[in-house]
Amino acid sequence: MSRVYVAGVGLTQVGDRWESSLSDLAAEVGFKAIEAAGILPEGVVVGNMFSAHSSSQEHLGALVANALGLEGVPALKAEGACASGGVAVSVGYTMVKAGQLSSVLVVGVEKMRDLEPRGASLALAMAESAEYTQFVGATFVSLNALLARLYMEECGVSREDLAAFPVLAHQNALTAPHAQLKRPITVEEVAKAPMISDPLTLLDCSPIGDGAAAALLVGEERVAEARSPVVELAASTIATNRFSIYERDDMLEFTATRRATEKALETAGVGLKDIGLVEVHDAFSVVCALSLEAMGFSKRGMAPKEAAEGRFDRQEGEVPILAFGGLKARGHPTGATGVYQVAECYLQLTGRAGENQVEGVDTAMAHSVGGIDTTAVVHILRRCY
Amino acid sequence: MSRVYVAGVGLTQVGDRWESSLSDLAAEVGFKAIEAAGILPEGVVVGNMFSAHSSSQEHLGALVANALGLEGVPALKAEGACASGGVAVSVGYTMVKAGQLSSVLVVGVEKMRDLEPRGASLALAMAESAEYTQFVGATFVSLNALLARLYMEECGVSREDLAAFPVLAHQNALTAPHAQLKRPITVEEVAKAPMISDPLTLLDCSPIGDGAAAALLVGEERVAEARSPVVELAASTIATNRFSIYERDDMLEFTATRRATEKALETAGVGLKDIGLVEVHDAFSVVCALSLEAMGFSKRGMAPKEAAEGRFDRQEGEVPILAFGGLKARGHPTGATGVYQVAECYLQLTGRAGENQVEGVDTAMAHSVGGIDTTAVVHILRRCY
Repeated sequence: MSRVYVAGVGLTQVGDRWESSLSDLAAEVGFKAIEAAGILPEGVVVGNMFSAHSSSQEHLGALVANALGLEGVPALKAEGACASGGVAVSVGYTMVKAGQLSSVLVVGVEKMRDLEPRGASLALAMAESAEYTQFVGATFVSLNALLARLYMEECGVSREDLAAFPVLAHQNALTAPHAQLKRPITVEEVAKAPMISDPLTLLDCSPIGDGAAAALLVGEERVAEARSPVVELAASTIATNRFSIYERDDMLEFTATRRATEKALETAGVGLKDIGLVEVHDAFSVVCALSLEAMGFSKRGMAPKEAAEGRFDRQEGEVPILAFGGLKARGHPTGATGVYQVAECYLQLTGRAGENQVEGVDTAMAHSVGGIDTTAVVHILRRCY
Repeated sequence: MSRVYVAGVGLTQVGDRWESSLSDLAAEVGFKAIEAAGILPEGVVVGNMFSAHSSSQEHLGALVANALGLEGVPALKAEGACASGGVAVSVGYTMVKAGQLSSVLVVGVEKMRDLEPRGASLALAMAESAEYTQFVGATFVSLNALLARLYMEECGVSREDLAAFPVLAHQNALTAPHAQLKRPITVEEVAKAPMISDPLTLLDCSPIGDGAAAALLVGEERVAEARSPVVELAASTIATNRFSIYERDDMLEFTATRRATEKALETAGVGLKDIGLVEVHDAFSVVCALSLEAMGFSKRGMAPKEAAEGRFDRQEGEVPILAFGGLKARGHPTGATGVYQVAECYLQLTGRAGENQVEGVDTAMAHSVGGIDTTAVVHILRRCY
């Protein structure tokens, strides 16, 4: 069974990319990753959640392969709601692992701005059940707000405590070239921002944006050809939880994240203490907290306070998170996000993170989620030189 | 590297399934396949093209895993337009091949009837480029009609010649329990049916319908546990062509089908002469002809005449095709179709095809296409007892 490596990545700035189509964005980052690696991919996997809604477009696997001029190669799209990018990386990993292909380009791409005004809410709601949850008018934000309220009441967490995560994310994004939101915010600003769904304000929620990211995965037989340093993709795991939060025994326990993390650590042969960076799925501040707790980094109800105390800071923290701003400030172009995370871990592990570099990181973890912990994908990347 | 086997399948009748939701249909066939195999899947891959349009639903991987009560398992959706079912089988095959999972349930599901009246055309058009092809008003049928006209003119094929395929498909579907259209048709009826897009009439086109099919794939370490006979999934290959027909050097050459077929035959270590049954993607009569020619079964322009002469007949033919009616008469619930084909090959190779049995078949091929030969998936299944 081949080991799998990331041999090059491509990123573009998240934001309002009116001038670029889905295939423009995908080609831009795809070419960057191919150029960086100096290796032509034998196949393409695309992560995307709702191009059908935003762009009346499916069939993105072949569309992106064609935009890159990769004639004839196998190509497909993988989807797992907001975890689509992570799921796509996982499918690419499996193809290389199985020895089917020796190089696979994974591209995550999403155009959120092309949705009509109400469109983003309707599109994101497709992560939840149309029959049982969308039907009652619940939006994705409102479900996360219910969860935040429960978390606050059960764990004695305050509105201000939760704000530690967006504050940290915005701080880290200040110097990230590809980040969408580059301005510092304070706990007070988070608490006083326009209310989206009580208790979540605008600044608890990741923004709407267009974006794309790419990672070129190769098997060990191709490593010697790589033009850039490679990083081992040491584990790739997907797990699920019961579909909607109201079906779960304990809504505050993110079992998909827990399962995927445990399995990934086991596969990579490392422990939590070895993880020097976590790109955690901070779509909402409460999700960031519950994810860190499910992974085992914090005890229940403790993550927000630890964040406020600096435990997750990029420079001095014990477990740095969201090194380029995370979903909250780098941005969350849905189906692209999981690939951004893996590409960011690659930049960190090869010492190419510029002003955002986390010092001394050897092993990093990327965590991509669809729904509210309904699908969780965990990747572990490891420096190999 | 493990060999991969189909250990059980589940099918439901294609048609107007107003009473059943996406997850109802998926669960129905998923439980059938699990029950038949007597093995619980460790993961779920769902094939679907446009549940976002038909049902305002994404995240089908976790949704279907949840509907089946498979708590915690990895789950994802795979998409490749009308080849989504074939692509999903391929992803499941790769997971087992890589040794990640020892059993994977692949479910293809599509609700076409829930689309609003114009909806099916708009949804199917997402297989083509929104920027360059949908934009000019071309529907998917009209593009196939252009191709049919070119084929007729360049190869001296008549309107009546093309009708041989739907006539054959309808004949085979008469006794297929899960087929949508069970009535015989004649060449004259095909030619005189309402015109959809000249020269394609209603009876040249596969129908709109809801459906779902499932196949439980296992690695060799699980074969001994299987309650039903197993069939080897000896090859699974995906290839692409230039995205749209007008970008191709020769519109009548289906290079994705050719590439995927050649690679599949090589992987399985068999030749065309060993193939005793072909479930070919007969979405339109012209597509059936060009696919058989690209695979190498017929020379250019010859497939329709050979069909009329009986070469592809189920009982007396040299190369039986569409044993249960194919897309044209079993039905073509888009993202489910590729799984129907694999499940039908399983039924044939285990002698469970009832009145539709092809005698003496040891090796079968399933061919699933997205767009007009834009993505082609070929599976080779082999009897192993």
